[in-house]
Amino acid sequence: MHTTKQLIQLALGEDIGPGDITTDNLVAPDARGIGTIVAKQDLVVTGLQVAEQVFCLLDPQVTFEARYADGAQVASGSTVASIEGTLAALLKGERTALNFLQRLSGIATQARDYVEMVAGTPVTLVDTRKTTPGWRVLEKYAVRMGGAHNHRMGLYDGVLIKDNHIAVCGSIAEAVKQVRQAISHLVKVEVEATTLDEVEDALAAGADIIMLDNMDLEQIRRAVEVVEHRALVEVSGGVTRQRLKALALTGVDLISIGALTHSAVAVDLSMNITAN
Amino acid sequence: MHTTKQLIQLALGEDIGPGDITTDNLVAPDARGIGTIVAKQDLVVTGLQVAEQVFCLLDPQVTFEARYADGAQVASGSTVASIEGTLAALLKGERTALNFLQRLSGIATQARDYVEMVAGTPVTLVDTRKTTPGWRVLEKYAVRMGGAHNHRMGLYDGVLIKDNHIAVCGSIAEAVKQVRQAISHLVKVEVEATTLDEVEDALAAGADIIMLDNMDLEQIRRAVEVVEHRALVEVSGGVTRQRLKALALTGVDLISIGALTHSAVAVDLSMNITAN
Amino acid sequence: MHTTKQLIQLALGEDIGPGDITTDNLVAPDARGIGTIVAKQDLVVTGLQVAEQVFCLLDPQVTFEARYADGAQVASGSTVASIEGTLAALLKGERTALNFLQRLSGIATQARDYVEMVAGTPVTLVDTRKTTPGWRVLEKYAVRMGGAHNHRMGLYDGVLIKDNHIAVCGSIAEAVKQVRQAISHLVKVEVEATTLDEVEDALAAGADIIMLDNMDLEQIRRAVEVVEHRALVEVSGGVTRQRLKALALTGVDLISIGALTHSAVAVDLSMNITAN
Amino acid sequence: MHTTKQLIQLALGEDIGPGDITTDNLVAPDARGIGTIVAKQDLVVTGLQVAEQVFCLLDPQVTFEARYADGAQVASGSTVASIEGTLAALLKGERTALNFLQRLSGIATQARDYVEMVAGTPVTLVDTRKTTPGWRVLEKYAVRMGGAHNHRMGLYDGVLIKDNHIAVCGSIAEAVKQVRQAISHLVKVEVEATTLDEVEDALAAGADIIMLDNMDLEQIRRAVEVVEHRALVEVSGGVTRQRLKALALTGVDLISIGALTHSAVAVDLSMNITAN
Amino acid sequence: MHTTKQLIQLALGEDIGPGDITTDNLVAPDARGIGTIVAKQDLVVTGLQVAEQVFCLLDPQVTFEARYADGAQVASGSTVASIEGTLAALLKGERTALNFLQRLSGIATQARDYVEMVAGTPVTLVDTRKTTPGWRVLEKYAVRMGGAHNHRMGLYDGVLIKDNHIAVCGSIAEAVKQVRQAISHLVKVEVEATTLDEVEDALAAGADIIMLDNMDLEQIRRAVEVVEHRALVEVSGGVTRQRLKALALTGVDLISIGALTHSAVAVDLSMNITAN
Amino acid sequence: MHTTKQLIQLALGEDIGPGDITTDNLVAPDARGIGTIVAKQDLVVTGLQVAEQVFCLLDPQVTFEARYADGAQVASGSTVASIEGTLAALLKGERTALNFLQRLSGIATQARDYVEMVAGTPVTLVDTRKTTPGWRVLEKYAVRMGGAHNHRMGLYDGVLIKDNHIAVCGSIAEAVKQVRQAISHLVKVEVEATTLDEVEDALAAGADIIMLDNMDLEQIRRAVEVVEHRALVEVSGGVTRQRLKALALTGVDLISIGALTHSAVAVDLSMNITAN
Repeated sequence: MHTTKQLIQLALGEDIGPGDITTDNLVAPDARGIGTIVAKQDLVVTGLQVAEQVFCLLDPQVTFEARYADGAQVASGSTVASIEGTLAALLKGERTALNFLQRLSGIATQARDYVEMVAGTPVTLVDTRKTTPGWRVLEKYAVRMGGAHNHRMGLYDGVLIKDNHIAVCGSIAEAVKQVRQAISHLVKVEVEATTLDEVEDALAAGADIIMLDNMDLEQIRRAVEVVEHRALVEVSGGVTRQRLKALALTGVDLISIGALTHSAVAVDLSMNITAN
Repeated sequence: MHTTKQLIQLALGEDIGPGDITTDNLVAPDARGIGTIVAKQDLVVTGLQVAEQVFCLLDPQVTFEARYADGAQVASGSTVASIEGTLAALLKGERTALNFLQRLSGIATQARDYVEMVAGTPVTLVDTRKTTPGWRVLEKYAVRMGGAHNHRMGLYDGVLIKDNHIAVCGSIAEAVKQVRQAISHLVKVEVEATTLDEVEDALAAGADIIMLDNMDLEQIRRAVEVVEHRALVEVSGGVTRQRLKALALTGVDLISIGALTHSAVAVDLSMNITAN
Repeated sequence: MHTTKQLIQLALGEDIGPGDITTDNLVAPDARGIGTIVAKQDLVVTGLQVAEQVFCLLDPQVTFEARYADGAQVASGSTVASIEGTLAALLKGERTALNFLQRLSGIATQARDYVEMVAGTPVTLVDTRKTTPGWRVLEKYAVRMGGAHNHRMGLYDGVLIKDNHIAVCGSIAEAVKQVRQAISHLVKVEVEATTLDEVEDALAAGADIIMLDNMDLEQIRRAVEVVEHRALVEVSGGVTRQRLKALALTGVDLISIGALTHSAVAVDLSMNITAN
Repeated sequence: MHTTKQLIQLALGEDIGPGDITTDNLVAPDARGIGTIVAKQDLVVTGLQVAEQVFCLLDPQVTFEARYADGAQVASGSTVASIEGTLAALLKGERTALNFLQRLSGIATQARDYVEMVAGTPVTLVDTRKTTPGWRVLEKYAVRMGGAHNHRMGLYDGVLIKDNHIAVCGSIAEAVKQVRQAISHLVKVEVEATTLDEVEDALAAGADIIMLDNMDLEQIRRAVEVVEHRALVEVSGGVTRQRLKALALTGVDLISIGALTHSAVAVDLSMNITAN
Repeated sequence: MHTTKQLIQLALGEDIGPGDITTDNLVAPDARGIGTIVAKQDLVVTGLQVAEQVFCLLDPQVTFEARYADGAQVASGSTVASIEGTLAALLKGERTALNFLQRLSGIATQARDYVEMVAGTPVTLVDTRKTTPGWRVLEKYAVRMGGAHNHRMGLYDGVLIKDNHIAVCGSIAEAVKQVRQAISHLVKVEVEATTLDEVEDALAAGADIIMLDNMDLEQIRRAVEVVEHRALVEVSGGVTRQRLKALALTGVDLISIGALTHSAVAVDLSMNITAN
Repeated sequence: MHTTKQLIQLALGEDIGPGDITTDNLVAPDARGIGTIVAKQDLVVTGLQVAEQVFCLLDPQVTFEARYADGAQVASGSTVASIEGTLAALLKGERTALNFLQRLSGIATQARDYVEMVAGTPVTLVDTRKTTPGWRVLEKYAVRMGGAHNHRMGLYDGVLIKDNHIAVCGSIAEAVKQVRQAISHLVKVEVEATTLDEVEDALAAGADIIMLDNMDLEQIRRAVEVVEHRALVEVSGGVTRQRLKALALTGVDLISIGALTHSAVAVDLSMNITAN
């Protein structure tokens, strides 16, 4: 929450700077207006509270009425929210509010699409740490609103042992043992494996989750058999839309997809403003 | 610069939080390593100084050697930069540095592509304020590195009179006159026009730039004739890749394209780390 | 706005620090009072919203009633504003609020004076970047309230090519060309000239404004003739009250005056507080 | 120190904002230069470390060589400091560094002047809390560099009981007693008195210092006799240059002068920059 | 106040981070609840406004009703405060609010205990600068709520000349003279003495307070006789509960005790929450 | 790391404020000195890097030589670290550095003591969220240095379902199911149980850890039998030194102890400074 407020302030600061020289010089500070935010395409809306905060920071008396909850499917042409406040606040906040809404809804909309591609399979789609710097919490929220799930939030709330860590410690067994001793009993340990031998080592070491890195379908199926539900199995790397369904059918528990955040684009939303 | 540092700190904070529980528990603080950042596709690289700052904040003694300058065309497989420092700093900074580089290079790469589509025409492609909140300065920089140009930086360094401003003031003439009186003599005034009548009004009012909003090709050509180089003419709205070349050939001076920033996706870059 | 709030917080922090050890120990936190801010000399009042914010930060329920708008001419003895709130907030905020009001009104009062000296001439008086560090936006606002105009806000919203830039680029023509390519089409280019040859070079290079640096009256008149309204002409340097009217009559468009901000002194305002 | 750094960053931020669009586009980032700061009038220089910090924030490798110590009397035409660093840092920092130096040296120069007016008398001249918001520590430092002394730094490091505090407590005796109980034994208590009766009350109450508020010379002399060195006597209010010497000869210990800070103007210093 | 708000935000940030993953996923954002804070032992309550601010930052509409004022003696089992607001805010703020209350009340409770040990003697018990970093203002406040007094707040609001300062200056006399010249007339000077000779030197130098450092009872009594009320006498170092009463009876004015803050432990308070 | 730096800056700010008026006026800025930090009792030292940062913030060229690593057992009289730098930095940083070291070493020393009480049993001692606000990361680090372990860092990196959450959801089963769906697969779920029935419910619901809240020894032994290693069992509440060994022998996996942080007191360390 706190970080989001910082990001909103950064965003308003970079857009308005020392002042909106058009609006400040043409619009009376007490003139009032109404704005409506409209979907210009079918989309999963997300970020309405952020948009509300944008306007509230500019005019604490603003009234923001959301017509949908975050995560709702909205048809093109629908009004998503209406805002009543000073005309100046509406004009100054419009672009920043839309910039937030368009990106977050873009992520949610794309995530929904991915989730539907694997509907009917037991697999869980999760995001990665490939998020826009400064947007981690917001983008992971948008992923959830689209129906996918979150991987760890950052480097602090889950252990992921990669090749470099293993190399430094000497073996998977040693790395898992060492990290278990140090961390809270509430945190799980995931180990990255690139071969079936490593999968077995990870399993023997007591990994809670095993991440199969860039394996082909056949290797993945074999790994699932080896693990036999004694740990969760996650697939990562090279996950394309084309390959997604096949991956889901291998029996893995989780597929992590960087594109959920790093390749989402803005959806089309606009704001109509009228003085009143 | 200052804002960028804030964004980098926000990014490291959200990723590392109270600590990287894997690396902090497995890698000795004084172990050293080398990282190389490699392009996994053809791209225009941008953001190398930001990547350098990421690692420097984690280890002030790090050595970051960029092999290319921002804006350079880089072939798939090329090493973009090498970094030498503590292994812990490399492991903790890797994802954040790549997240910056991948997005900024993605914008520059796409911008280069747009610019090439209008090569040979005198038109200038410019970005908009549809940037990722918190990233205004960085994304506008990436647009320049891709060869396109910048519109105003924010609401403070250029006047853009839109329909709401005109409605409040009564007429384009009145709005231009009122704003000119208030602003610095170093700032230009742009007026949005949706009809040819408005184009003529804006011209008569002494607008420095006239923005044609969502006009068709025929209207645009007529507007260019009417203006006759007495003001700059900018086209905005509904600019698709398909329509770009035709727009460029209408004789307008500027085409502004929101997609330069709001629809850019990450390009593929990865980092190899080895302990030494 | 944002920066102003930072400055107010800095100011309250440096004055109150860990606590007002007189008031905190003598005045009950819920005791209430009324304050009136009174002009002790004729002045142009400016900064009332800043003064209001000072008290609001100390007591969010305070009522601040301004009797004049910023920019109004106020006669000695007049009440400028009245404030109702906790007695403690009034006592703690008094000095800081007055410090803001006295300096800003001092700038506005002096600016009004300068403007009146050139009344009847078409010249525009503008400020410079010689403002009190931390006060840029506020002091430029006070200049406007006094009836003078603003030069660029900072280094980011207008180009001013000086001797060092020209030396580095080789010529005025080259410098103007190079900077035009890089900047937004909404920003103008001003060139500093110390000789008539440089005035002609700047004109040929397409400068939007030419700044005559430390020229004598005769040179200035010649420059105005040379430029012939093809660019705006600004006079800068050595602008004294004695010389102001003569400068205004040379036909230049703009006179920039550092003293508008760097040599303004506080006007006399005081605050009467009574418990109620 | 900390607050000063915040103020410098605020100042650089408000001047440079998202970038110096002239210098960034015309001067190579690695081009180097030399700057010299020169006094254009006789003055007491103050603020050299602040100026140094300005340039260091822009270029950590800058070399700043001060030719004088803060507080030194400098003759017109003398070089005050020379700076070597990137040309870009010199050009971007010039105005902000000079803005600090000119104001702080202006305060020190004026303070020196006041101090000389009372040379030979045992009186101590002190400043007030009428400082520029955000500049408290710096301006009080400049006052000392000019040879005058500081009153309390803020509301937290000295007790000053005024009429409102007395009214609320019922009597001077009660107010002094109440505050003494609460404060540290390292802090002194000053009481404001407007009549000789109040002077006697304050003395009886055990005030460490008695401030005579807006009294005439005769009253002041009487007060000094009454107090008989049992407390320090301070004169405040209506202190003009004309009246200063006469006040000093009344035998009071301290004269506090708001004009030391609120009516100081910038002295003339300039910076010459050459590429090298 | 300002610093306290920073500390509260730091505290909420470190506890909640990117989100309370239990409450955020199980409790509806608009569900409401009531909490009561109950003393589980006899204690002097302190910190109720801090606790209120914790909840207000999480839910600005929260109602916090304190049943006691800070400094009140509260019996085990008593309800100290009740809070009404969203259930989520109660659950998220509970631990942080209690952590503040338990530590501050712990300090006040222990201070009350110390004060009672010297009841009937004229000595004043004061704290030291041995406070928890970040908590200076709050802990000194808790000391006052427990009935003890404050020494200086920090290095800025009182002079304390120690052995190192004396060594550097050559003598106590020289050190006192030098510092007096520089500081405000509202600040007192304390000198640390380890021998009776130093006590006499400090007295001759005009010290306002003399701190006897680690002397035995006999030396202390002698020092009190030497000083004869011409300065305040403070005892510091080696102050144990066992020795306290004897020290108080030596006739010294002040005893400073680091344990008031550095050895206070949390008292037992808990919070009951019910949904409503 | 970041938060720690903020806390150190807060601490230096609250102690030094606008300046150390003793040292700034008596010690030349370039005078140098040496400090040694000495243990005045047997202790487990912790916080040496924090102490180093304190001095580095005051004098970036300081040399800090730690003689022990954090977590080392140090005998009374041993030198823990030596510092070489400006005398002013040593004098200004002394108290803040010691305040950090004394509290952190106090926690580590007490933790070591607790750990030794259960030596030979397989139980793990863990801390709680009852830490000093602002100190979470530092205090949890000190707990580890003393040999105990950490519970979750905050509300964000582990799920703990308490009675209120269960009440709102209807049942333990429902609460666990609901939260599992929402959280990352890297995070574990702990459930608080006050009766054996609840223990069975939690087990059936698939809790990873079951916290036995305020049970007696007999109930705890029964719960351990019921769980039969299908989940971790944690004991919480009413853990006294007297009861600790008995609790450890019940067969539970974890005992959480608030006193590890909320009831630790400072250990005795002092700093000797000499000019050189």
